[in-house]
Amino acid sequence: MLTYQLEKKGRMPAYEFLYKSIREDILSGRLCADDKLPSKRALAQHLGISVTTVENAYQQLISEGCVVSRPRSGVFVAKLDRLEKNCPLQQKAENSTKDEKEPILLDLAQNMPDAESFPFSTWAHLTREVLSDVFGELFSPVPNQGLMSLRCAIADDLRERKGMSVSPHQIVVGAGAEYLYLLLAQLLGRDAVLAVEDPGYPKIKKIYEQLNVPCVSVLLDEQGVDTAYLKAVSALHISPSHHYPTGVVTPIGRRQELLKWARENKGIIIEDDYDSEFRFSGRPLPTLQSIDRCECVIYMNTFSQTISPSMRMGFMVLPPRLLKRYKEQLYFYSCTVPALEQQVLSRFLSEGFYERHIFRMKKKYRIKREEVLSFFKGCKFVKFIDDKGAGLHFLVGLRSKKSDGELQKKAESMGINLAFLSDFASLEKSRYEHILVVNYASLKPDSLKENAALLEELFSE
Amino acid sequence: MLTYQLEKKGRMPAYEFLYKSIREDILSGRLCADDKLPSKRALAQHLGISVTTVENAYQQLISEGCVVSRPRSGVFVAKLDRLEKNCPLQQKAENSTKDEKEPILLDLAQNMPDAESFPFSTWAHLTREVLSDVFGELFSPVPNQGLMSLRCAIADDLRERKGMSVSPHQIVVGAGAEYLYLLLAQLLGRDAVLAVEDPGYPKIKKIYEQLNVPCVSVLLDEQGVDTAYLKAVSALHISPSHHYPTGVVTPIGRRQELLKWARENKGIIIEDDYDSEFRFSGRPLPTLQSIDRCECVIYMNTFSQTISPSMRMGFMVLPPRLLKRYKEQLYFYSCTVPALEQQVLSRFLSEGFYERHIFRMKKKYRIKREEVLSFFKGCKFVKFIDDKGAGLHFLVGLRSKKSDGELQKKAESMGINLAFLSDFASLEKSRYEHILVVNYASLKPDSLKENAALLEELFSE
Repeated sequence: MLTYQLEKKGRMPAYEFLYKSIREDILSGRLCADDKLPSKRALAQHLGISVTTVENAYQQLISEGCVVSRPRSGVFVAKLDRLEKNCPLQQKAENSTKDEKEPILLDLAQNMPDAESFPFSTWAHLTREVLSDVFGELFSPVPNQGLMSLRCAIADDLRERKGMSVSPHQIVVGAGAEYLYLLLAQLLGRDAVLAVEDPGYPKIKKIYEQLNVPCVSVLLDEQGVDTAYLKAVSALHISPSHHYPTGVVTPIGRRQELLKWARENKGIIIEDDYDSEFRFSGRPLPTLQSIDRCECVIYMNTFSQTISPSMRMGFMVLPPRLLKRYKEQLYFYSCTVPALEQQVLSRFLSEGFYERHIFRMKKKYRIKREEVLSFFKGCKFVKFIDDKGAGLHFLVGLRSKKSDGELQKKAESMGINLAFLSDFASLEKSRYEHILVVNYASLKPDSLKENAALLEELFSE
Repeated sequence: MLTYQLEKKGRMPAYEFLYKSIREDILSGRLCADDKLPSKRALAQHLGISVTTVENAYQQLISEGCVVSRPRSGVFVAKLDRLEKNCPLQQKAENSTKDEKEPILLDLAQNMPDAESFPFSTWAHLTREVLSDVFGELFSPVPNQGLMSLRCAIADDLRERKGMSVSPHQIVVGAGAEYLYLLLAQLLGRDAVLAVEDPGYPKIKKIYEQLNVPCVSVLLDEQGVDTAYLKAVSALHISPSHHYPTGVVTPIGRRQELLKWARENKGIIIEDDYDSEFRFSGRPLPTLQSIDRCECVIYMNTFSQTISPSMRMGFMVLPPRLLKRYKEQLYFYSCTVPALEQQVLSRFLSEGFYERHIFRMKKKYRIKREEVLSFFKGCKFVKFIDDKGAGLHFLVGLRSKKSDGELQKKAESMGINLAFLSDFASLEKSRYEHILVVNYASLKPDSLKENAALLEELFSE
């Protein structure tokens, strides 16, 4: 029988609480099409409320088309096709987590930080602190480029951790990388032709193309993008520190070549510093932004990999020449990040919590990484491991002769979530077949061992 | 002498705290170019810290180019042109509030809700509640259309307060109206030609044009947009409930005509329900969305006028046909609003605080409105008052023969901030001259009386 805790209704009328609870169960898929609801009398008795209350709730559900009343049979959850008209339910996946469909035993594809290790209590404490310290300010207008205190804190972090010399005036804060791409597409100008990396993160190209920026996919070599391919383009979007998903790190010589290309062709380089915070071997290279002498590099980064992608917070650093263009053309856009998040992140950065968090996570990820690497090294189905010593993922070559599509399908039916390198490629796809992208940050190493037999079965030749 | 509270430095080294404090004073304009900083010894004594600490702070400022050391004279704040190279300071206005430039005695232009009347403590309480109830969830991914609980709460609010029947599945949450315009520009498709109201809110046209959607400005008559002007367009962006800034309310007959136009031409109508919450006379008209039978109306609204523009939260309601298009083309965009704000707003709505807040604000605004109206009725410089009985602004016709530009300039020099109807018009601008847009929501009526003589002087013929 449907059970809802009516004591949780607060100030809401009982019928409304009941109606909303049932509706949520229908929308979330907990109640399915054609499920019969209990009779009004039975439900009233079960929940200890009046029959009229249940009747009112059912009536509201009927009027919205969520349930249908069939004479002499009872009240049933509406069929999908009926519901679709007013409220398209077909996209269950959108709300329900995937495991409602098919329990996921092992997820190697999810590219998310290890949420459990985030210092929640510190973040909550800072949020409470901001609420009492500057609460009034949270409702005053935010400068369009973002709060000055946050931009100063970001500039300090860039200087301290990456040796970048950046003024807070060059920084524009925005609601995540995708929103920044939307701004960048406008900033590049109408005649821009943009080169993007291939393989690469597909949303980058997708968003620029949505905004009518013609994109040219450029094949990566082992150093990143070769300037020989940049003859017909005016801008370039790259991740030289640690490319996702190939892991390629662009060496200093190639970086100089890219800057030379930009200088000689008045090109713009967007340096997307995604996945650059965690490096486990070798020395970090200077960012393109910090060795740029011709104001052609736009640096961008987010806190998705270090804090959480659901925080929706990113920033870009514009060189003076492009800052001027931004001021003229795009400055009218209001800042998309609420003041509260900006205040909290600003304190999280300037009080040293961010640096300590990165330091702690680096240690944790190093251990996890070793565990996951050693697991794959022991697997018979592994042909090679391509690990560049950085980032929250590495590549695993497979001996399997089955196509990636076949493997993907079989994996799904077994409850295993996989990402293939070929999914990220649009050119010469076959070159990238039979290579797994293993995202280990949110992976539980035990789940690997527990499902080792399943993996062997899946990848058997 | 520069005074900073070093006890506030927290865990930061003293030199770093001092350096950051001085830098912030320079960036915010509190310290100006060529201002001399105190000698190291004097400042050290004044603040009770060591000379080395001050020296380290000054050194950091010098290395960043924020200050310059002149031999045998001292340390000075760097000149603008020097600073501009690395950190363009020219845009002081961006951070400093306007009153740093010229004290504002009276602001009739600021289109902001009355922040002081917002139930801060309730909002803070709900935020704390969310932090302890669902804190872990705040870092899990948010569905791309927004949290289901928030979308249900919005659907309920639309039903209860506006009689709209909307499924939460039709709702897309986004970081403010401007972000929604960016999505809409993409949703309209590549061949779209959009009609926008003239006069109108200039950012609407600007954002669509930024995204290469050709825009046709359509002159408003006393009922809003006339369908005779819609021959060559495929979509229409309007505010039929209460147009900003003319205040025009589109009557039901005209609404039917607009829907007929859409039906017969497969047109799309974007119903921007900005400034529709406060109505002081007459009955509210049904929204276009609720009388649309051909799936051609997209309804959108924000919480900027009712809660705060700095919350950056808006939503749109897509009819099934366009929801399908959204799912196919734009669903890949992540939701731009952080989970915390969504959770808090969801509770604010569903626990009845929002409705009560609107009710309370309506009473407050009614009183303020009457006060401001009666002030202007008593002014000799007023030719007519055009008040449609709704919204947070009304129009005041002026007897003055000076041009709006002249008046604006003179007003600025007197510390009065004005908005003219002609600023919002691109067609037949002269028709809209000598009309003030009086935004009264955040205005203190006393400040009007105190500055009555100034206004008489300003608008004297």
